[in-house]
Amino acid sequence: MSQQDLEALDVGAIREEFPILERTFDGEQLVYLDNAATTHTPDPVVDAMSEYYREYNSNVHRGIHHLSQEASIAYEEAHDRVAEFINADGREEVVFTKNTTESENLLAYSWGLNELGPGDRVVLTEMEHHASLVTWQQIGQRTGADVEYIRIDDTGRLDMDHARELIDDDAAIVSAVHVSNTLGTVNPVSELTDLAHDHGALSFIDGAQAVPNRPVDVKEIGADFYAFSGHKMAGPTGIGVLYGKRELLEDLDPYLYGGGMIRKVTFEESTWGDLPWKFEPGTPPIAEAVGLHEAVDWLEDIGMDRIQAHEEEIARYAYEQLEAEGDVEIYGPEPGPERGGLVSFNLEGVHAHDLASIMNDHTVAVRAGDHCTQPLHDKLGVPASARASFYVYNTREEVDALIAALDDARQLFA
Amino acid sequence: MSQQDLEALDVGAIREEFPILERTFDGEQLVYLDNAATTHTPDPVVDAMSEYYREYNSNVHRGIHHLSQEASIAYEEAHDRVAEFINADGREEVVFTKNTTESENLLAYSWGLNELGPGDRVVLTEMEHHASLVTWQQIGQRTGADVEYIRIDDTGRLDMDHARELIDDDAAIVSAVHVSNTLGTVNPVSELTDLAHDHGALSFIDGAQAVPNRPVDVKEIGADFYAFSGHKMAGPTGIGVLYGKRELLEDLDPYLYGGGMIRKVTFEESTWGDLPWKFEPGTPPIAEAVGLHEAVDWLEDIGMDRIQAHEEEIARYAYEQLEAEGDVEIYGPEPGPERGGLVSFNLEGVHAHDLASIMNDHTVAVRAGDHCTQPLHDKLGVPASARASFYVYNTREEVDALIAALDDARQLFA
Repeated sequence: MSQQDLEALDVGAIREEFPILERTFDGEQLVYLDNAATTHTPDPVVDAMSEYYREYNSNVHRGIHHLSQEASIAYEEAHDRVAEFINADGREEVVFTKNTTESENLLAYSWGLNELGPGDRVVLTEMEHHASLVTWQQIGQRTGADVEYIRIDDTGRLDMDHARELIDDDAAIVSAVHVSNTLGTVNPVSELTDLAHDHGALSFIDGAQAVPNRPVDVKEIGADFYAFSGHKMAGPTGIGVLYGKRELLEDLDPYLYGGGMIRKVTFEESTWGDLPWKFEPGTPPIAEAVGLHEAVDWLEDIGMDRIQAHEEEIARYAYEQLEAEGDVEIYGPEPGPERGGLVSFNLEGVHAHDLASIMNDHTVAVRAGDHCTQPLHDKLGVPASARASFYVYNTREEVDALIAALDDARQLFA
Repeated sequence: MSQQDLEALDVGAIREEFPILERTFDGEQLVYLDNAATTHTPDPVVDAMSEYYREYNSNVHRGIHHLSQEASIAYEEAHDRVAEFINADGREEVVFTKNTTESENLLAYSWGLNELGPGDRVVLTEMEHHASLVTWQQIGQRTGADVEYIRIDDTGRLDMDHARELIDDDAAIVSAVHVSNTLGTVNPVSELTDLAHDHGALSFIDGAQAVPNRPVDVKEIGADFYAFSGHKMAGPTGIGVLYGKRELLEDLDPYLYGGGMIRKVTFEESTWGDLPWKFEPGTPPIAEAVGLHEAVDWLEDIGMDRIQAHEEEIARYAYEQLEAEGDVEIYGPEPGPERGGLVSFNLEGVHAHDLASIMNDHTVAVRAGDHCTQPLHDKLGVPASARASFYVYNTREEVDALIAALDDARQLFA
């Protein structure tokens, strides 16, 4: 991306919508590089939710009064907007959950618990987030299905030969992360989906680190199911999304039961309502849906391709600066189309937690830990890593602050 | 309650914190009597969430940087505050879910799916909300356990002789609603809990219509599990609570899997973290927890006993006015200690939906339908009812507006 394009993004104007970025600690301004954990929420999104509570708060569906009609329309239109954003076929294909984790569990219960059995294989990758890894592992143990992991190579990419080995006619589902939250790897999710379909298996893509940061077209990918969260895409906490192909969702039974999702209930039996409501029992995250709708508008006003380019440019700069230090180990692929907007690393001789602590002394916020990928860290041979993850409001100067803090860490610990 | 006490509540000042109550439609001011579906959210609660997003938004747990520390403390203290509010023994006994419905399902999966089997009896009541009724019905079908319902008598109270019949040594769990969202009945939940414990069964109380409206002390009730939602108690959507006795929660396996709830994960197996986090996988409802904390503060500043007295006074007035009409059928007990702050009814010769629609023409917001208690409505012999439900900001004048609208309904439909 050229410098001209970056200027066109006007990061300065964008930052003005995030008062939190003005926070200072001991006189130093916050440098927030923990966006893979959660992004911040621009004023229009916060204001949209406040407006909901102050102007048209109400429970949704079935209400006849004005407020309930307004809230119901807003809640339903949020589904439409998210569907449009990822190119799904309408609100029936968009289920609101509480987070990506619940989206994973929804499928594991609604489909996995009922359909899997001994002889079936669940194919994951070694870079799966615990949300996927632990869920399918536990459903595997409960149903007797085998769970196998596509190996990664030394560059942090999937070993596609191994993928082709594991995805055979015994494979029942392939569940893969779109962009690794640790390695930054952008996985070939269309290819994995094609492999799955060639063998009659389903494909589930964890897009928590993709939808916020790049254009995602579920039809282009071809995945049967796709999951992501509001709070990682400039939206609120308390809401996640499960996209599913309509005919597949129609065939699935819900796993959570309650009001708002039924057609008919007697003391003896129940039948289910229409999509997507049959998967959304109880009072749903209404204010959060309003916030997510606004977040999607906000992101598209900027443009997902420009957001992607900006983040990858910053990540490339960070990668190159870290690499030039000489004593920093970086995980995952080199900058390019196979790396997203984050960099995980370790400084020689310094534990990641100590490093993050030193960074925090300089008000540089990075995450240290296993990033919910413990088995991957075991494989990398480290207990933890530091991770800098970027969003639309980050700048090269913020990367410079991160690099500057490395010196302090060396002096204190090396 | 004396008029003096009602004045002491200062409803006028309370209403100023709810700008939504100033809404007008066709020049007439909103009369919001749909509080059992959702209550409105006072400015301090909305502001607390906005402040979270603008000042200390961050993912929680394990983060080393300033923002993550601030958010984690706020999130954990919200558990402490809710625990104190219901007299639980600390944050370990308070699990944040997405709503009451998920709280019910959590126990049904974590305990029911693993522990129930043929010969076991799940004892519900005929007035259960679908959140409880459908959930246990489906888990019963899956496990082979019987599901039986304690009958109600003609006054809308539980037939306690039938309760004693059903709760014998085959009973594995008794799940009962504290205050019926349709009949308004306040059930003898301590007595039901004692009966359950006498026979080695667990007790689960659905307090969605109780915690917002009256002092609730889980120790005094003695229940093993107790559930409620934020959005019905002046708090936000997207958050619910499951209270559970610590030793029972410790013995339960989680039903949702993901990050933030594990101790150790390998490719082969996982172990679970500490309470309450082992039941809260993925990014939790952080802003919502901040809002719920503020809502609890707000409610306790007024005083739950005064809120209860105010609502019951308004409900008594509504009951008496409706009864005086002569052609209104009211469901549930007469006003008194066994009725909470809501009244469900039908006007002779007018379908509940038409009635609610007429009411809406007068900007009186009531709910019409089965209120997620279809089997109860079948038993009452009506497809639907209209329901007026009251909160701390409602007035007698609003009840008068409801009564006035009845005339129009008669003229149009009778």
